[in-house]
Amino acid sequence: MAVRADLNISLDGYASTTDQTPENPFGEDWGRLVAAYTATRTFRERVLGDRSGGGTTGVDDRHGAAYFENIGAEIMGAGMFGLHDFPDDPDWRGWWGEEPPFHCPVFVLTHSADRDPISFANGTEFRFLDATPAEALALATEAAGGADVRIGGGVDTVREFLAAGLIDRLHVGITPILLGRGKNLWAELRGLEEGYTVTSEVAESGVVHVTFARG
Amino acid sequence: MAVRADLNISLDGYASTTDQTPENPFGEDWGRLVAAYTATRTFRERVLGDRSGGGTTGVDDRHGAAYFENIGAEIMGAGMFGLHDFPDDPDWRGWWGEEPPFHCPVFVLTHSADRDPISFANGTEFRFLDATPAEALALATEAAGGADVRIGGGVDTVREFLAAGLIDRLHVGITPILLGRGKNLWAELRGLEEGYTVTSEVAESGVVHVTFARG
Repeated sequence: MAVRADLNISLDGYASTTDQTPENPFGEDWGRLVAAYTATRTFRERVLGDRSGGGTTGVDDRHGAAYFENIGAEIMGAGMFGLHDFPDDPDWRGWWGEEPPFHCPVFVLTHSADRDPISFANGTEFRFLDATPAEALALATEAAGGADVRIGGGVDTVREFLAAGLIDRLHVGITPILLGRGKNLWAELRGLEEGYTVTSEVAESGVVHVTFARG
Repeated sequence: MAVRADLNISLDGYASTTDQTPENPFGEDWGRLVAAYTATRTFRERVLGDRSGGGTTGVDDRHGAAYFENIGAEIMGAGMFGLHDFPDDPDWRGWWGEEPPFHCPVFVLTHSADRDPISFANGTEFRFLDATPAEALALATEAAGGADVRIGGGVDTVREFLAAGLIDRLHVGITPILLGRGKNLWAELRGLEEGYTVTSEVAESGVVHVTFARG
């Protein structure tokens, strides 16, 4: 059983973007940051539900597919679920739609945890809790039943788990663009490499995949 | 003729280190940052004068060797020459010793430019000037006689030339460690990739070589 996290970041370390507008709610920067990942066959099948067999099948796709393998439970921040978008609506079911691509228990960290779990037919169940990273991980580990636990995001949540020393394997896909602003994955993580073996691989797209693995 | 720069940086973008002590004037971080480069055969021969043929000969060495190819003139900041160490000594000849590894005119940018040029038998000549990046580049280009001009450093000087759009080819060797502090190469360079083709390559050492090239 391992605790894993995967993020797409820019060459200058940013894992979030800042150019959202009402007309373009993700912003152009987000599209550039994740272009190689969203072009993969895995993303198209697993996230978009596209069974046509399209999409890239190279190094980016191999890392993309690994993202979904052997996950027994996930932990995410409130923002990634969507709690920040409609904080006062107790019936808000997040922005993952009726086919959330998790297929396992998902622990949503929030200071307003008095929400009932939300279950979906595909095995996804969102559970809300107000807990430290270590407490949340204990619950997720038990729910995962021996499979891996994924720290899904966002970047603040991943950084908290990294700072607490709770992540066994961190994979980042580095897109060679400079965003210059946003949330920086690497802030306040001096010396993170200690205790990890770091390996890197360049994809056909130009994305550099860097993996920190324990042991 | 191209204007080029090469730097070693950490995964979080730092090109300088902060843990210097009187006992260890470079600091341990600097050693970790440049370990793969200083292990190359090229560094040992060209910088240390070691003709024994030792040192690595892989991807790091190929990039290291390219650093010295076809350079007709160099521009560096005052700090890299060593002016900041003994600012009040008009006879201070910098900390590059009597065999500076440049073998060409070196333009040292300083606000106290009333220093005579310093020439060495191996073709190195330090010239001191108070000039904008564009003015310095015009002089260096003329001195280079058709060969390339290298912006040698330090990181502030390279960033000034990048921000002014004056660099045709930037190579960074990214060591997969997080320094967390120092001077960050990528600060305030949002969108740098526009107008460049970016390619990456992973060395046997684990260093990721990223090159921004015009055209």
